[in-house]
Amino acid sequence: MEKRIGFLGPQGTFSHEATQTYIESQAKLNGSDVTYALKAFYTIQDVLLGLKKDDIDEAIVPIENSLEGAINVTLDVLAKEEGFYIVDEHIIPINLNLVAKKGTKIEDIKTIISHPQPLGQCRNYLGNTFKNVIQMEEDSTSKAAQKVASADGTYAAVTSSIAAKTYGLDILDSNIQDAKNNFTRFVIISKVLKKKTGRDKTSIVFSTENKPGSLYKILDIFSLWDINMTRIESRPAKNELGQYIFFIDIDGHIEEQDVYDALTMVKRKTSFYRFLGSYPAFGNLYDV
Amino acid sequence: MEKRIGFLGPQGTFSHEATQTYIESQAKLNGSDVTYALKAFYTIQDVLLGLKKDDIDEAIVPIENSLEGAINVTLDVLAKEEGFYIVDEHIIPINLNLVAKKGTKIEDIKTIISHPQPLGQCRNYLGNTFKNVIQMEEDSTSKAAQKVASADGTYAAVTSSIAAKTYGLDILDSNIQDAKNNFTRFVIISKVLKKKTGRDKTSIVFSTENKPGSLYKILDIFSLWDINMTRIESRPAKNELGQYIFFIDIDGHIEEQDVYDALTMVKRKTSFYRFLGSYPAFGNLYDV
Repeated sequence: MEKRIGFLGPQGTFSHEATQTYIESQAKLNGSDVTYALKAFYTIQDVLLGLKKDDIDEAIVPIENSLEGAINVTLDVLAKEEGFYIVDEHIIPINLNLVAKKGTKIEDIKTIISHPQPLGQCRNYLGNTFKNVIQMEEDSTSKAAQKVASADGTYAAVTSSIAAKTYGLDILDSNIQDAKNNFTRFVIISKVLKKKTGRDKTSIVFSTENKPGSLYKILDIFSLWDINMTRIESRPAKNELGQYIFFIDIDGHIEEQDVYDALTMVKRKTSFYRFLGSYPAFGNLYDV
Repeated sequence: MEKRIGFLGPQGTFSHEATQTYIESQAKLNGSDVTYALKAFYTIQDVLLGLKKDDIDEAIVPIENSLEGAINVTLDVLAKEEGFYIVDEHIIPINLNLVAKKGTKIEDIKTIISHPQPLGQCRNYLGNTFKNVIQMEEDSTSKAAQKVASADGTYAAVTSSIAAKTYGLDILDSNIQDAKNNFTRFVIISKVLKKKTGRDKTSIVFSTENKPGSLYKILDIFSLWDINMTRIESRPAKNELGQYIFFIDIDGHIEEQDVYDALTMVKRKTSFYRFLGSYPAFGNLYDV
């Protein structure tokens, strides 16, 4: 069986790295029964559009970074699109490097290019070391590396080491992220629900009625059923400033009676509700 | 008396616009007793550093947009720095325009430049109308406009109309933001606490112990004291993936006994806690 997996390209992005290590971890679980075909997309929206149109079987997209927080576009698409389910999660460490053309010196650099997420992850380093240097956004760290490779020697990029290698750039400085505890969590999205594995978590999104204490009442339901909430993330509802939708992760699988009953009650008590999937929780960060 | 206010410059940014309308609203309240001196800074961190070093008396920084959500850098600085208090809030509508050099046609455009926030706010518009156009990040909408003014006619920017005017650019398309309900909330930060006005709100930030149900227990305190929570925002704790700090807004002022007692209890029950200020809640969005 062949599985087609879409990721945020081009080659050399951390999403690409995550996809490859995810596939390797799956191969260990499934043996050689499944082969994988990777397909790169230009934006997170395009990856998920590819899934919608059945160009791919699964999409792997970043959902959360340990320093920068939620990946808003992923949350917004999950809240909006029906028929997508999270079927797995995968976590990789993010090690960032300052890369430039051979011969470039630190003091030559006038512009530093990267994706906004890695730029944010090096905020202190860039602010201290490159006070008057312009920061420029690109769609991906690979595109940033590509741009630096074709520009004059006043540009540098913040990228993975694999991207530096791909575009023939020198690493001027490595592990430049402000905190060394830099991980990104990816979710694997499919149109098919995942069966219970026994070490599962469940994700939902909802909005409450605009009444005092309405979020508290929802969390009360989880407390009543002794269900552990592991994450809450709010996003603007986009209809009015001060209105929010909430993404919540809980322990357990929808096939478990308690989880099913609690979520049935949550659905009754919310003005908008969507089940985003039950899937195995990622094992150990340091197994990667 | 002169008050020195720092904002995210240069001239023509939405922060500049917010600062001017804030000053006008203050002049209505205070009469001509207070005059204002505006000082532009290059980054949100620099605005707050200016306040720390007493180069300014107050800083005005964006904290939340009705479409894109929280401004992470503002939240992260508020959580980290001691001795800063929110003393007021101000909300302005954000109307975005596609601007370019005189004579540029829509089909000429190869690169669109702006701050990541407005680019996000026009995600659908840009994705539909400019499928293969490169999006490039700049520090501010003004810098984007400046860049377009000095580039060849294949560039466009997403900016305020005041920025287009400042840099002599044509407006090719206006109100291009995906949702028309686009507002940004700013907070005014000072080293001096604000007295009770009778229509106040209070902001805190905390982290809970890493135990099941610990966030629920905090919200339980507000429920017990009949205090209405109007906002909850999580940010990564940055020490470990899956650990968070929470920003919460409640109705009322710290000088009120109930608020004081509830927050004393919250402080006891959290592993990290910081009071971020009590201040008058913004009146009416449509008075602006």
